[in-house]
Amino acid sequence: MDQERFKKQLDFILEIDKEKNILRQTHLSNGGRREDDAEHAWHLAVMTYLLSEYSNRKIDVAKTMLMTLIHDIVEIDAGDTYAYDAEAKKSEKAREKAAADRLFGLLPDDQNEKLRSIWEEFEAYETPEAKFAHVMDNFQPMLLNHSNHGGDWKEHGIRRSQTEKRNEKTPEGSAAIWDYMKKILDENVAAGSLIDG
Amino acid sequence: MDQERFKKQLDFILEIDKEKNILRQTHLSNGGRREDDAEHAWHLAVMTYLLSEYSNRKIDVAKTMLMTLIHDIVEIDAGDTYAYDAEAKKSEKAREKAAADRLFGLLPDDQNEKLRSIWEEFEAYETPEAKFAHVMDNFQPMLLNHSNHGGDWKEHGIRRSQTEKRNEKTPEGSAAIWDYMKKILDENVAAGSLIDG
Repeated sequence: MDQERFKKQLDFILEIDKEKNILRQTHLSNGGRREDDAEHAWHLAVMTYLLSEYSNRKIDVAKTMLMTLIHDIVEIDAGDTYAYDAEAKKSEKAREKAAADRLFGLLPDDQNEKLRSIWEEFEAYETPEAKFAHVMDNFQPMLLNHSNHGGDWKEHGIRRSQTEKRNEKTPEGSAAIWDYMKKILDENVAAGSLIDG
Repeated sequence: MDQERFKKQLDFILEIDKEKNILRQTHLSNGGRREDDAEHAWHLAVMTYLLSEYSNRKIDVAKTMLMTLIHDIVEIDAGDTYAYDAEAKKSEKAREKAAADRLFGLLPDDQNEKLRSIWEEFEAYETPEAKFAHVMDNFQPMLLNHSNHGGDWKEHGIRRSQTEKRNEKTPEGSAAIWDYMKKILDENVAAGSLIDG
């Protein structure tokens, strides 16, 4: 065992424990507390395994699962930027790039390059794997929120058009799941949880 | 899309959200709160990806990651059984089997069989993948606990021999990682966090 290599791996593994303290705006099902990033990433990876058959294009499932597992690690330094916070969104990319430099940079060079590349692929939103990972990243909080009668949308006064803007590339990842998501939006507009228009 | 199949998948996905409420005895690094099962599973999957090179035998990394992601789902019904709670350990297997029947049984048959089979492989502790997943399952709480100066061991008055008993098959999964774990035990005995003998 190369002790220096192993130490770098352990430094990273202990550092990412902090992802469990990064809270999202989404609440757990059954009206629970706010979800953290590590729980969210775990949920996406299991969902990716179970729902990959609905991807428009064939994906490398294992790679997409890894992508979902690491996609929010940068938030340890950059914080969670709420999808509908326009002001914070402006500085998000720069904050996250600096975070990727520091966090993935804790790893041995080969693993730094590998995880950095998968994270950048996610951010670039172009490959079938990145598109499907984003479908999961948008569908999971919608499922939780819907199970809580749209409470997260109500709390922030979200409009249907904002959710559609956020999901403008979702049909490119999975037309089938987007069809289902639109039904959730319909129901929440009808119930008054999501503002029409 | 087969709507009945999709509904079963979503029922399972929403049900396993409850794993985020199952608390373990381990505390997060930096003296944080108790960790939950979903966070733990996420951590193991990332660790598996990064540390697979230390497995004694070559493993299917993607399969082992999936194994770590789902290994604790049964605890939604069966609860977390502390590794050093001898009384609770007696009924653990039966409680977990009933939980697997109900929880994986929410899925369409093909996915029920697949996840059930991977969970049973983990429990049987015989394949290289199962042995390495167990190394991760034992190493991760030790890393967190060590970062907290052995606080979890102190709280429960744990003896070194109990940790060695729990890890009796760890060297079969990774001799290299077990060598490192023994150093952690040495340090914690020396510091008085773990009772010698």
